[in-house]
Amino acid sequence: MQDPFTSRLATRMQGVKSSAIRELLKMANQPNVISFAGGLPAPELFPLDAMRAAADRVLERDGRKALQYGPTEGIAPLRELIAARANAADPHAEPVRPEQVLVTTGSQQALDLLAKVFLDPGDPIVTENPSYLGALQSFRLFQASYWTVDMDDEGAMPQALDPLLARGPKFAYLLPSYQNPTGRSMGPERREQVVELFRRHQVPLVEDDPYGALCFGEPAGATLRSLAPELTLHLGTFSKTLAPGLRLGWVIGPEEWVARLAQVKQSSDLHTSTLSQHVALEVMGAGIIDDHIGKICAAYGERCQAMLESIASCFPAGTKWTVPTGGMFVWVELPQGVDTAALLPAIVAEEGVAYVSGAPFHPNGGGENTMRLNFTHASADVVRDGIARLGKALTRALEATTA
Amino acid sequence: MQDPFTSRLATRMQGVKSSAIRELLKMANQPNVISFAGGLPAPELFPLDAMRAAADRVLERDGRKALQYGPTEGIAPLRELIAARANAADPHAEPVRPEQVLVTTGSQQALDLLAKVFLDPGDPIVTENPSYLGALQSFRLFQASYWTVDMDDEGAMPQALDPLLARGPKFAYLLPSYQNPTGRSMGPERREQVVELFRRHQVPLVEDDPYGALCFGEPAGATLRSLAPELTLHLGTFSKTLAPGLRLGWVIGPEEWVARLAQVKQSSDLHTSTLSQHVALEVMGAGIIDDHIGKICAAYGERCQAMLESIASCFPAGTKWTVPTGGMFVWVELPQGVDTAALLPAIVAEEGVAYVSGAPFHPNGGGENTMRLNFTHASADVVRDGIARLGKALTRALEATTA
Repeated sequence: MQDPFTSRLATRMQGVKSSAIRELLKMANQPNVISFAGGLPAPELFPLDAMRAAADRVLERDGRKALQYGPTEGIAPLRELIAARANAADPHAEPVRPEQVLVTTGSQQALDLLAKVFLDPGDPIVTENPSYLGALQSFRLFQASYWTVDMDDEGAMPQALDPLLARGPKFAYLLPSYQNPTGRSMGPERREQVVELFRRHQVPLVEDDPYGALCFGEPAGATLRSLAPELTLHLGTFSKTLAPGLRLGWVIGPEEWVARLAQVKQSSDLHTSTLSQHVALEVMGAGIIDDHIGKICAAYGERCQAMLESIASCFPAGTKWTVPTGGMFVWVELPQGVDTAALLPAIVAEEGVAYVSGAPFHPNGGGENTMRLNFTHASADVVRDGIARLGKALTRALEATTA
Repeated sequence: MQDPFTSRLATRMQGVKSSAIRELLKMANQPNVISFAGGLPAPELFPLDAMRAAADRVLERDGRKALQYGPTEGIAPLRELIAARANAADPHAEPVRPEQVLVTTGSQQALDLLAKVFLDPGDPIVTENPSYLGALQSFRLFQASYWTVDMDDEGAMPQALDPLLARGPKFAYLLPSYQNPTGRSMGPERREQVVELFRRHQVPLVEDDPYGALCFGEPAGATLRSLAPELTLHLGTFSKTLAPGLRLGWVIGPEEWVARLAQVKQSSDLHTSTLSQHVALEVMGAGIIDDHIGKICAAYGERCQAMLESIASCFPAGTKWTVPTGGMFVWVELPQGVDTAALLPAIVAEEGVAYVSGAPFHPNGGGENTMRLNFTHASADVVRDGIARLGKALTRALEATTA
């Protein structure tokens, strides 16, 4: 007899896999393993002193507010600050009003709220191929089906996007700046072309932008939101610029739709931690953030450079990779026949190096010969060491398959 | 033409009402209004100094960990602490292991996760009548249907519960201790009877227990979880004992089912604020919590007493009310014909007193003559003043209907 829980599972749980990736990440987190697997910011660069001072000031001055229940939409001064920063970043766009901002529990929650508001089982959505795994998981739990857009060096290709938008998906989910997992970024002309397609077909556009500020080369360019505010729900986060442990993200969009997301957020977690919101607000008010982002970007640029040089010199012939100018990831495509998922356990065990295999980032399958490498979490020297070991293991594996 | 968002709403959004209650709560939060409407703890009793010291120690000692991404299940030492406290509270039950604990973003999130894991559209669940509005909203978003159990002074009645469990609902959702909204609590014998029914019918039991520690009279008694651990998912929270702004709750249950909830939590918000988790852990470790809970309970007991005495002397003849020995709420049933929702706007505007009308707590309608009154947020004097004003307005309204 089945236990009384198992026989009662919702249909949507059939799509929830026992997470092999989570198990591997646990393995990758062992102390002697160099992990390129996560998407973790460098903890040694967290603005610790500023955070500590901010927490202390907040609890001294506003403790009762910072520990009490708060509004579902987020505390008013933080919504104002997020709107003001969006307006400073896109000075030529229609200004964002604070009422257009919803504070979320990390931008992951925004994905969950979007799924709740828009997705019935089987509903089609458009994503890049490959795309962010966490978003695919959120949408898959709500039984989305995927129409995938092919990418070139600038991300989603207009000629691939056009016929998909014409078919009327629920929405398209794009990461135009330093995409996860590929690191690719749309240039200004590409952004205009893409937005023009959304205008023509009147399809809602979800712009996920966690990495836009993490620029160490070509700037990311205008947000898609600034080019088509009436059609875009823009997702941002403090996780990469300040600290992920706060779990603070946001959505900017048309006021009516932000209000819809807030209705659904209320039954999801009432509101986001008021302590986190007050601390973030205080740190942002301390005026250190732009210097701090500059410091992160410089470090990440150096680490990325180290990774790219090491890949060029250590990875097997026939390997292709992206050359990001920002963000956190390099995307690697190995010669056909290399199965990065199958190789991973041995490479972790024998070489002490971990990565994420690329297949799960492909909503409809494929990509067995790809992998995502994170360059932000380890120092440049550790990156070089790890990539050299990984290159050796991959070269050996490739020789074995072609022998 | 509809805008491109509206035409794309998910079916589940048909059940999401434009929240009249949220609008009223905003009105109730005006500075000159005495609000019995929310479920807010008394902010003047927050352990502010301990929280401030804890935050400072955490950021000094463990800042990089407290600001980084963390495990979806919650940080290990907090799961251990929650298990240890559960075991201390129920010393005769099978001990809870840390693997059976999932940290959630408030216990509201646990309700959302339960809905995701168990509910297909139309699935029946059992709830008390009336029951917690936030839970009804979470389950309604996932299109649950409700089988409601009648209550007496000890909460859900076994003879009403038995035939409903026999029909095989997805689960039953109960608040056995100082229930929201009624303040009713099951005695030891009732708990045994209820658990016996769940055993006989093999139905999963969701025990929501935010108020169990807030006892100023009869102790709440053994948790239902301790009586039937194999069938129970037990929801707890730091919101009432420590501070709601942390957004920290938890689920305790069979390990396999806690793991299922964790899978779904990953796509909901990755994990709960690590800063909140570390701060709560540090405060709990400081050894002040039991004294602190004692202080809250004494204050809430005094406020409850003030409310009960004032109701007895000021409310119209024919009014009935509950006499809670813990928790945060008194439930009031006015004579038939009084519509508390219809009266509310005028009472807020003219008397400067707010409450929550009782109808929305009834999953399948009814209860128009009921209201929920919170006694924890205002001092005893303010409670007396507010109840006197409210009683006057209700008496006048009743005279008008019977005139």
